Amino acid sequence: MLTHMLAHSIPDLLPAKNGEEPTIQFLLEVVEILTNYVRKTFDRSTKVLDFHHPHQLLEGMEGFNLELSDQPESLEQILVDCRDTLKFTYEIAPVFVLMEQLTLKKMREIIGWTNGDGDGLFSPGGAISNMYSVMVARYKYFPEVKTKGMSAAPRLVLFTSEHSHYSIKKAGAVLGFGKENGYVPLFVNATAGTTVYGAFDPINDIADICEKYNLWLHVDGAWGGGLLMSRKHRHKLSGIERANSVTWNPHKMMGVPLQCSAILVREKGILQGCNSMCAGYLFQPDKQYDVTYDTGDKAIQCGRHVDIFKFWLMWKAKGTIGFEQHIDRCLELSEYLYNKIKNREGYEMVFEGQPQHTNVCFWYIPPSLRVMPHGDKRREKLHMVAPKIKAMMMECGTTMVGYQPQGDKVNFFRMVVSNHAVTKSDIDFLIDEIERLGHDL
Amino acid sequence: MLTHMLAHSIPDLLPAKNGEEPTIQFLLEVVEILTNYVRKTFDRSTKVLDFHHPHQLLEGMEGFNLELSDQPESLEQILVDCRDTLKFTYEIAPVFVLMEQLTLKKMREIIGWTNGDGDGLFSPGGAISNMYSVMVARYKYFPEVKTKGMSAAPRLVLFTSEHSHYSIKKAGAVLGFGKENGYVPLFVNATAGTTVYGAFDPINDIADICEKYNLWLHVDGAWGGGLLMSRKHRHKLSGIERANSVTWNPHKMMGVPLQCSAILVREKGILQGCNSMCAGYLFQPDKQYDVTYDTGDKAIQCGRHVDIFKFWLMWKAKGTIGFEQHIDRCLELSEYLYNKIKNREGYEMVFEGQPQHTNVCFWYIPPSLRVMPHGDKRREKLHMVAPKIKAMMMECGTTMVGYQPQGDKVNFFRMVVSNHAVTKSDIDFLIDEIERLGHDL
Repeated sequence: MLTHMLAHSIPDLLPAKNGEEPTIQFLLEVVEILTNYVRKTFDRSTKVLDFHHPHQLLEGMEGFNLELSDQPESLEQILVDCRDTLKFTYEIAPVFVLMEQLTLKKMREIIGWTNGDGDGLFSPGGAISNMYSVMVARYKYFPEVKTKGMSAAPRLVLFTSEHSHYSIKKAGAVLGFGKENGYVPLFVNATAGTTVYGAFDPINDIADICEKYNLWLHVDGAWGGGLLMSRKHRHKLSGIERANSVTWNPHKMMGVPLQCSAILVREKGILQGCNSMCAGYLFQPDKQYDVTYDTGDKAIQCGRHVDIFKFWLMWKAKGTIGFEQHIDRCLELSEYLYNKIKNREGYEMVFEGQPQHTNVCFWYIPPSLRVMPHGDKRREKLHMVAPKIKAMMMECGTTMVGYQPQGDKVNFFRMVVSNHAVTKSDIDFLIDEIERLGHDL
Repeated sequence: MLTHMLAHSIPDLLPAKNGEEPTIQFLLEVVEILTNYVRKTFDRSTKVLDFHHPHQLLEGMEGFNLELSDQPESLEQILVDCRDTLKFTYEIAPVFVLMEQLTLKKMREIIGWTNGDGDGLFSPGGAISNMYSVMVARYKYFPEVKTKGMSAAPRLVLFTSEHSHYSIKKAGAVLGFGKENGYVPLFVNATAGTTVYGAFDPINDIADICEKYNLWLHVDGAWGGGLLMSRKHRHKLSGIERANSVTWNPHKMMGVPLQCSAILVREKGILQGCNSMCAGYLFQPDKQYDVTYDTGDKAIQCGRHVDIFKFWLMWKAKGTIGFEQHIDRCLELSEYLYNKIKNREGYEMVFEGQPQHTNVCFWYIPPSLRVMPHGDKRREKLHMVAPKIKAMMMECGTTMVGYQPQGDKVNFFRMVVSNHAVTKSDIDFLIDEIERLGHDL
């Protein structure tokens, strides 16, 4: 539900590059797998489940390989993966629990934590992932809050930058933190890819301070975490391996359909400690399989939507290398846009220098404003330009691009590219369209 | 991921009663609508969106009627609804926002709040909905906690019953409440349909106390809320209209696929007050349409998964009357099970009297235990029976049924029916299977 450019995007599950038919053909084969599955559910002579222990699944029984690799699999193999997955979905869905476990470990390895050790969960969005990070930090330093409430701790406060996502502030309000002077610092959020500018906080510098004062360091990489997949761009998150927790949303820059967000924590077992209520009537310890795989009590949710499958399947289909290409391509397209407009008549960039992420923030100045002296009157008029152009774009149905003010800066366009099917001519079209609609304002 | 009976269940979207082919046929037509939509996304000559104002959609433009009614629509009309919905999905997805608005209002009417007025949201599960209720209660009585933290309020405590869902306790831990004597009561949770027994707390009696002491009354109807759809069974929730907030999960008793949970609040606008952070860079007030429809800042999430569409479409397809039939049928099947085993040799019921919900809780006593005197040894043995039978069921793949201990009661089976495609012979099969597998234990 965010205001990104939606120009002709489709969920980017497929490696098919040559147009629509391979995509449609593949989708129809998936549909056939599913309809066969539905047919089977009508047949009471078939088994309800084909039980296997989690460790058997992990060991690749019946040739089902859950591991993620660098290279993409063939579409044929992806269909096999779909069929295999359906075989093992029952009760607490062990196959999805294992997919989560393997994928979270892979993400922690990419962050740079030793052996990919640590903890993690998929949560319903970056705001909730950020909230988990604050909860875990509070539990780490003041575990007694879990049973005694906030009054068992000193008055605590969180640190975050003005440009950080509002969910950090919201987590503070929800969890009962205050925002007053004199409170005790607990937690610092560094943003890797701010919402508006796509800026990366200097993680190493912040980590130095956190180490010195013994504070929890969280990196909100909801938007910028995807750059970790790129050898070219991951240096922008240097120091992330020093964080205590990381939010990373595959449903943003990596093109996974909403919702798919991960909270990753460096300390093993801490989510369980923080959130478990040990409800024996839901998490039975005397099951016939190894219940250490159960993740239910780590979450603040009870039942959880299966967000992992689409991500896992996409990873299988693209390979690690495919995500890297995806990221590099999106950043290249943004660079193309930036280079096209940075010195073009009628454009002003909102911040200096080349964007760090795909966010290109700019004002379009219609000819009537180009001759106006700078001052309040021009500011007022400029503030109206982006909303007017956007409204016309929507009425025409030709394209869409987000805008917003930021601090004392009046409304500007923020163009982001997260779909690598965008082409340079789409970017050209966007600029032509802004000029066509905005020329006479 | 809950341990319910999964015997041959399919998501119950369709009114088709005569077997598999109408279902498959309908699904294939939906697939065709979707593949045509995907094809269109490849075609850069088509419009990105076909803009209409929210109020135009509400007024039923182009014949698209969002209202929910008592009677089911035809499958033909459901296909039309799917096509219409796809026309209006762009940016913050106004069509889904409107579906949410209409559906939440309908749910509030069914609860019995005047004119269906109030507030509400779909959230990622009942645990989060329950957490919202505590947050809103805290905001109502101590709004300064939002900015100053829990230290701005006295030490607060929540009341809930021992059999209530653990998410109430979890919400207390997350939000910084304590569980000590001497704290000030703020909030009372009454459960409509407990997880294990399916028991309904006496809402009117609890409401009397809440009114007397000026406490927030929440009804956790995650599991039992569905009974509101039934003229025969809704009396079990008498007094629910006196609650300040209600959790109601269509993804449980009403058969909507996970996740689909609603938090409903009697006071209008309070979710916005409680949770808004007014992030101008995301929720632009100067859009060309009426931004009072924007729900983003009411939630603790930022982006939200679209949970409403499947529920809305199911309501269209079944009608209010279809949900009533669904609920009545499930309770009838449970009654059948209860009547079958209550006096049968080898069975003991866990609680006295007829179940209020579909939860039938019972021990199966294998012949070897029937002759043992009551005492610790028998208890120990009986505790092992349900897990052993369940393990054998899973190994055989014939059926599954949940079990758990509760308080000082050893492991017992809990059979629930939420799928109205279950038949009496499925219930017979379950009993036969328990006896076949458990006879020699």
